[in-house]
Amino acid sequence: MVAEIITIGDEILIGQIVDTNSAWLGRTLGDAGIRIGRIVSVSDNASEIVRAVESALKRAELVLMTGGLGPTKDDITKRTLADMFSMQLVRNEEAFRWVREMIEARGLEFNELNQSQALLPDRCVMLPNRNGTAPGMWLDRDGKVLVSLPGVPFEMKGLIKNEVLPRLREHFTLPRNLHKTAITFGLAESMLAERIAPWEAALPKHLHLAYLPSALSIRLRLSVYETDDPQAAAEIDEQFARLEALIPDYLVGYGEITLEEASGQLLSHRGESVAVAESCTGGNIAHRFTAHAGASAYFRGGVVSYANEVKTAVLGVDPQALAREGAVSRIVAEQMAEGVRRITGATYGISTTGIAGPEGGTPEKPVGTVWMALATPTGVFAYRKQFGSLRSENIQRASSFAINLLRLYLKGCLKA
Amino acid sequence: MVAEIITIGDEILIGQIVDTNSAWLGRTLGDAGIRIGRIVSVSDNASEIVRAVESALKRAELVLMTGGLGPTKDDITKRTLADMFSMQLVRNEEAFRWVREMIEARGLEFNELNQSQALLPDRCVMLPNRNGTAPGMWLDRDGKVLVSLPGVPFEMKGLIKNEVLPRLREHFTLPRNLHKTAITFGLAESMLAERIAPWEAALPKHLHLAYLPSALSIRLRLSVYETDDPQAAAEIDEQFARLEALIPDYLVGYGEITLEEASGQLLSHRGESVAVAESCTGGNIAHRFTAHAGASAYFRGGVVSYANEVKTAVLGVDPQALAREGAVSRIVAEQMAEGVRRITGATYGISTTGIAGPEGGTPEKPVGTVWMALATPTGVFAYRKQFGSLRSENIQRASSFAINLLRLYLKGCLKA
Repeated sequence: MVAEIITIGDEILIGQIVDTNSAWLGRTLGDAGIRIGRIVSVSDNASEIVRAVESALKRAELVLMTGGLGPTKDDITKRTLADMFSMQLVRNEEAFRWVREMIEARGLEFNELNQSQALLPDRCVMLPNRNGTAPGMWLDRDGKVLVSLPGVPFEMKGLIKNEVLPRLREHFTLPRNLHKTAITFGLAESMLAERIAPWEAALPKHLHLAYLPSALSIRLRLSVYETDDPQAAAEIDEQFARLEALIPDYLVGYGEITLEEASGQLLSHRGESVAVAESCTGGNIAHRFTAHAGASAYFRGGVVSYANEVKTAVLGVDPQALAREGAVSRIVAEQMAEGVRRITGATYGISTTGIAGPEGGTPEKPVGTVWMALATPTGVFAYRKQFGSLRSENIQRASSFAINLLRLYLKGCLKA
Repeated sequence: MVAEIITIGDEILIGQIVDTNSAWLGRTLGDAGIRIGRIVSVSDNASEIVRAVESALKRAELVLMTGGLGPTKDDITKRTLADMFSMQLVRNEEAFRWVREMIEARGLEFNELNQSQALLPDRCVMLPNRNGTAPGMWLDRDGKVLVSLPGVPFEMKGLIKNEVLPRLREHFTLPRNLHKTAITFGLAESMLAERIAPWEAALPKHLHLAYLPSALSIRLRLSVYETDDPQAAAEIDEQFARLEALIPDYLVGYGEITLEEASGQLLSHRGESVAVAESCTGGNIAHRFTAHAGASAYFRGGVVSYANEVKTAVLGVDPQALAREGAVSRIVAEQMAEGVRRITGATYGISTTGIAGPEGGTPEKPVGTVWMALATPTGVFAYRKQFGSLRSENIQRASSFAINLLRLYLKGCLKA
């Protein structure tokens, strides 16, 4: 079954807010077996809204609208829908009582503006909003369903869970869609595609593969649509197990897992810890580790050694080696990783030193040159990588690459 | 002039990624005098893409597409556009050289999949992508313009700034809208509105004020629409000068300036430097400082003292004071700031220590409790703040508040 989403509001079109409602609706309805066929954002304009609704009702069995239900003048969704389907706006007594209770509980005056929230098209089903004063609306239209919800995320979400989904399950026979996503790191999309081509070619027809690339990693999603097969989830797991055997170094995990979470889990299982010595990544690796709740179990801390004096005085890098080889060198990366491991008492030390750009490159060490090292109880690994010319990208890529060294080591994929 | 955006990709419809590109495009094109009339998201499906493009070209003079330009099978935008406009996909030699250089510079194999990135519809203008292997495409269609860009945000943004906007300015007569945005920090929207009410009331009619609130700061934008008045920019500057006199502590700067950039500029002018000692912010302050090119002129480095042993061993916090008062205390914050100032040789030291959450709160120090300190050559300032319950929000808010201490001190607004 296919649904379309229409989000209403100038603030989306001028980019003042990012439309996060649609992604949430895509996930939530997808889990309930409803595929989103299209998302359309239009302005607070009656003819735009009418055109979008008419055209969506032609394609989809369910049209979900969000936004434009507030009490002020620029909120015109309700009036527009009533006109469109030749309905009257009349006071809904249940909504009236509900809105009054809510307004008075907040100690506010139940004035004309607020009372207008209880005016609804006369042939719609009122969906009570427990988190705000704009009720939702459910309209049946020639076997199709049109639902209009407020745009405030937590009000919309409450209405979907409490009112819309139960009614959809009654109204439609919903199939079950299954998705699972694997996170890979370290192979560009084209290389990954080449490596896993035999696996991809051997996938059964009803398992759909999608590549979801981002700047830092490629995610691979397997989907089974409209299935009641109790084996489908196990089938996806089995295919991913085969994939994992094919690219053990590159497969980080499943779902929303990050490199730092995957590394953190491996550290936790071993009762070990890590510390970071960052020059060109400037604290970003530490930030990425500590963004996750519970990081204190395995993350001991770090040093951002931006100035060379911090590298020598705090991390114990040899000043002569630094002068001879330069800050962006194997020996400095190695001594930084060993130094931070020593001063923090962590099991492992990770380091980065490089030229993030846009200035500071030389012919031998152009912008994007980064040395990274991993110090372990038994030795130190160091790698030089050449990233690109964009500072923020270089910082993120070097951070990911350095964290991945730890992950590879903990998985036994990195050997001296 | 009206443009429409079409974003292509199942990952948007199933909610796996939030479409942040559209909001950025809405802001960026809006600043250039182009209004977004509609945003449509469709799946990686040829007939869906064709329907969306045809219908958008009926309404808008410019259609901007993002996504579906990768080298793998599920990326079908290029092939679909070629078929739609009866064009052949042919190798674009400039793109071929560019993609090869980029692939080889990364030390990757220039294989068949990568080479396919240089195949383009034969009557389109190739837009070189400096940040990735998928070139953009510009097609003229009966006086209307269709632009197709990769969906990876930094690639799309680079193409818009470097290639698309300059061509749009040549191709269309864009109205001249003037915008300038002031960044404020430290006042909630309602408080700010109260403070600046007299200024707002006295604004001339043709200067439009907009409040642009975000989680971390309120931006105030003044706009003059469709003007050729050479005085308009000066008029906006004059009004902002009056605003600055009204709220000198709260006005950070203009445009896209951040608290850390504003502080960095003040440090540069004075030939001074800063270092950071971070516990609950976990490296985020260092990351925010070093995200800006040229930070090495004033940012010396820092210590992420997540484990208490790092606070004492590296930063020299008194173990007895730590045991007595706890890690989240005035004395520990003060000693961290002084310690990092001492070991890095920086003019100023900033510190944070708190409970980011979601676990770790106590009745006396609930989640969101943060102590922050600023060590200066003549003394140390410390403040306790109570933020909320969300970890990522607490990290960002504590970072901003701590950086703002330095900014206020450098502006002479913080006195002992």
